[in-house]
Amino acid sequence: MGTATIKKELIKILGEKKVLTDDLDLMYYSYDSSFLTRLEPSNPDAVVIPASTEDVQKTVRFAYENNINIIPRGAGTGETGGCIAVNGGIVLDLSAWDEIVEIDAENMQVIVRPGVIHANLNEQLAKFNLFFPPDPGSSKMCTIGGMVANNASGLRAVKYWSTEPYVLGLEVVMPNGDIIITGGMKARTIKNVSGLNLTKLMVGSEGTLGIITQIRLRCFPVPKARGIAMAVFDNLDDAPATVLDVYQNGVLPSGIEILDSSAIKAVNEFKPEINLPEAEAILLFEVDGNPPSVEYEGEIIRNVAVKRARSFEWSTDKKRMAELWEGRSITATAAARVRPDGSRIFAGEDISVPLSKVADTLRAIRNLGEKYGIRVVNYGHIGDGNVHTAPVINPENPDEVEKVLQLVHEIHLLAIEVGGTTTGEHGVGAVRRCYAEAEHGKAVEYMRKIKEACDPKGIMNPGKVF
Amino acid sequence: MGTATIKKELIKILGEKKVLTDDLDLMYYSYDSSFLTRLEPSNPDAVVIPASTEDVQKTVRFAYENNINIIPRGAGTGETGGCIAVNGGIVLDLSAWDEIVEIDAENMQVIVRPGVIHANLNEQLAKFNLFFPPDPGSSKMCTIGGMVANNASGLRAVKYWSTEPYVLGLEVVMPNGDIIITGGMKARTIKNVSGLNLTKLMVGSEGTLGIITQIRLRCFPVPKARGIAMAVFDNLDDAPATVLDVYQNGVLPSGIEILDSSAIKAVNEFKPEINLPEAEAILLFEVDGNPPSVEYEGEIIRNVAVKRARSFEWSTDKKRMAELWEGRSITATAAARVRPDGSRIFAGEDISVPLSKVADTLRAIRNLGEKYGIRVVNYGHIGDGNVHTAPVINPENPDEVEKVLQLVHEIHLLAIEVGGTTTGEHGVGAVRRCYAEAEHGKAVEYMRKIKEACDPKGIMNPGKVF
Repeated sequence: MGTATIKKELIKILGEKKVLTDDLDLMYYSYDSSFLTRLEPSNPDAVVIPASTEDVQKTVRFAYENNINIIPRGAGTGETGGCIAVNGGIVLDLSAWDEIVEIDAENMQVIVRPGVIHANLNEQLAKFNLFFPPDPGSSKMCTIGGMVANNASGLRAVKYWSTEPYVLGLEVVMPNGDIIITGGMKARTIKNVSGLNLTKLMVGSEGTLGIITQIRLRCFPVPKARGIAMAVFDNLDDAPATVLDVYQNGVLPSGIEILDSSAIKAVNEFKPEINLPEAEAILLFEVDGNPPSVEYEGEIIRNVAVKRARSFEWSTDKKRMAELWEGRSITATAAARVRPDGSRIFAGEDISVPLSKVADTLRAIRNLGEKYGIRVVNYGHIGDGNVHTAPVINPENPDEVEKVLQLVHEIHLLAIEVGGTTTGEHGVGAVRRCYAEAEHGKAVEYMRKIKEACDPKGIMNPGKVF
Repeated sequence: MGTATIKKELIKILGEKKVLTDDLDLMYYSYDSSFLTRLEPSNPDAVVIPASTEDVQKTVRFAYENNINIIPRGAGTGETGGCIAVNGGIVLDLSAWDEIVEIDAENMQVIVRPGVIHANLNEQLAKFNLFFPPDPGSSKMCTIGGMVANNASGLRAVKYWSTEPYVLGLEVVMPNGDIIITGGMKARTIKNVSGLNLTKLMVGSEGTLGIITQIRLRCFPVPKARGIAMAVFDNLDDAPATVLDVYQNGVLPSGIEILDSSAIKAVNEFKPEINLPEAEAILLFEVDGNPPSVEYEGEIIRNVAVKRARSFEWSTDKKRMAELWEGRSITATAAARVRPDGSRIFAGEDISVPLSKVADTLRAIRNLGEKYGIRVVNYGHIGDGNVHTAPVINPENPDEVEKVLQLVHEIHLLAIEVGGTTTGEHGVGAVRRCYAEAEHGKAVEYMRKIKEACDPKGIMNPGKVF
């Protein structure tokens, strides 16, 4: 079916207000935050902005009957091209569908539509002294639907896991228009082991199996207190060794972040007044819990860290905590500014490696940067081995673009080689699907079989994941 | 293929030592802990005791080529007939394959073969100050393979979740003999969002998709301290209200157990010296963490509980904690002894309901017991709504058997009706599969499609789950 007909038919089915067809509108949907879509943006044939499960079902049925691709999209904050119509089709923009259906505080749960923004959800939950713990850096923009689709996490995964365990049930429109409820049709339980675990199969499936239209999440009580520690190291290996030592002393912090020398330099260049100590690595620990617990764990971290650190500071004072954390919170921005003519690009940005390999990995990335003559800023969630790498290039320079793509490929191979993965939390999307066989071997065959069982026509977000 | 040929061929493939064929041996595999298999035991054609992935693969390939059912079995502690050859076939007894392959303390992980017993694993992990938190009542008998297959949990799920999140990767022999590695071929990461989530699809699939031959688990640091609180209530509704109040005051205990009046009575009859206070409900809270945290949270629980409780006690003394917990720890045994001619049967024993429905559910079960003239002892993990019901009958009396089966059916329907599930942690197996449609509606179709995609010949533990 041609683009013009698709547009006309969709308007017939859904009305003009829910369908975008202008080229200028479509262009907005041709990219996300990935470098790939900056290089190769790709317009969809049309965009649908659904306001109900019925709207989604109508759209999907139309697409199914006419073999048109369907690509779900949240806020477009993804860094993998996951929400892009790389082979044409209809983008379902779910970001406007941001209803919090019910805060079921009695049962420690919340039910939302996919477009709810993470920070908004936690703001509403806070009124009930509840929160949804996964904490992506894009909290103020990203949607819960996108988080579920990508199994997102962030700073706090080391203690609070990724999105996955919190997802108790989903409403999903399947590729032929069937509506299913996973986790129990009427269920409001926290524990449920009945049936195959379709809920968790959907989490992280990046829109390749169906469209998530409703999400039931478990919530936790808000911790009463937090504390921040900063430890500065002259030797890179001492950073992961300290993290392990903290675990072995019985402490599971809510976050453990690393800035290596490349990130420290970037931050100090961008905002000299922060004046981070020049060092091989800085670790930031966040501890949460009740007040005496936080103090106790802060003391343990101090005792452990000073064995190896050049300097150490611990605070539970709100203002000082913000100051200690500031270097980390501006790292991404600082990385983007290390060259006046350069941009930080989102590619190869989300490897996750075993804790025991973090130091070697960071050194290898530094060497790769030198090999290609590209500055790379490294930071990330060292507590779970999730390293964010920020290559900075002039994207208008074809030579640099070619080099950075090779660099990124080598970073991905490195991650797999050391027992890691190409993606710890951002997802595979279009940009990392070429590594599926290298990461998963024969298991990919079974991913394909399951995909075919759910989506026999292959219309659901094709060209992604594997 | 006839039983005699199956036996002969298996011996040819695997050797005599790994194949059981005597009727007496096979009878041992005709039942598990479920009441159903006591009523209707079912011998397999043969039993294979594999010692390697290759043994499993050879057996599965033989079964695949000859359309013979394959039924994996751990310790046989299940209460659902999940490991029984209800339609004949080969039972794979994985319980002897109990190797801890590697404790990778540096990466907070452990790799085990399926037969490792839960308590043994935690004993070995303790040497590294690590533990695997899910805590089933059958810890000293059940295998990790069985826990993964059933997504087991237990006392601590309220804080530490079920088995599911801890499973980072699996080796699985698929129904045609393919060996796949989920969670990354060489991966030792904690976070990994690459590819469809086959790992979590396998967790809780009860052997219907493949045979789990290796398991990679995340471990946590062992908490340094614990405390136990007991609160006694004259009004049943005050128990769940107190649980919610504790949550709302920011405390997530590691366990919250309830004994209702039926369980209190059973315990006092069985062991009068325990002398539990006669009441509508007793709540037991377990709190763990670091020492000041435990004291702080104990104080919060006290302040919350005394608003409604007739009496309250809190202790961090080892001996006193054991005494407070004793009533709970002997409840299952006590339930089995409430009638000299009776047995506690495992049927309808694992419903899970929303916290807000726990009191109504317990009352409704009491009424159902009266309706059928059957004594039912109620206890369980109220923190996550998981109620264990223990009907006590004379299993030699056909009239009582018929009545208890009706009672159990009504308990299952009740659970679904109030927004719960027929199984919170024990699994579906053969005994609860008839509720699949009522619980999951159209989603069952997709469970079947996925099952067919993985197991086109339907040889993998047929007659289970859905």
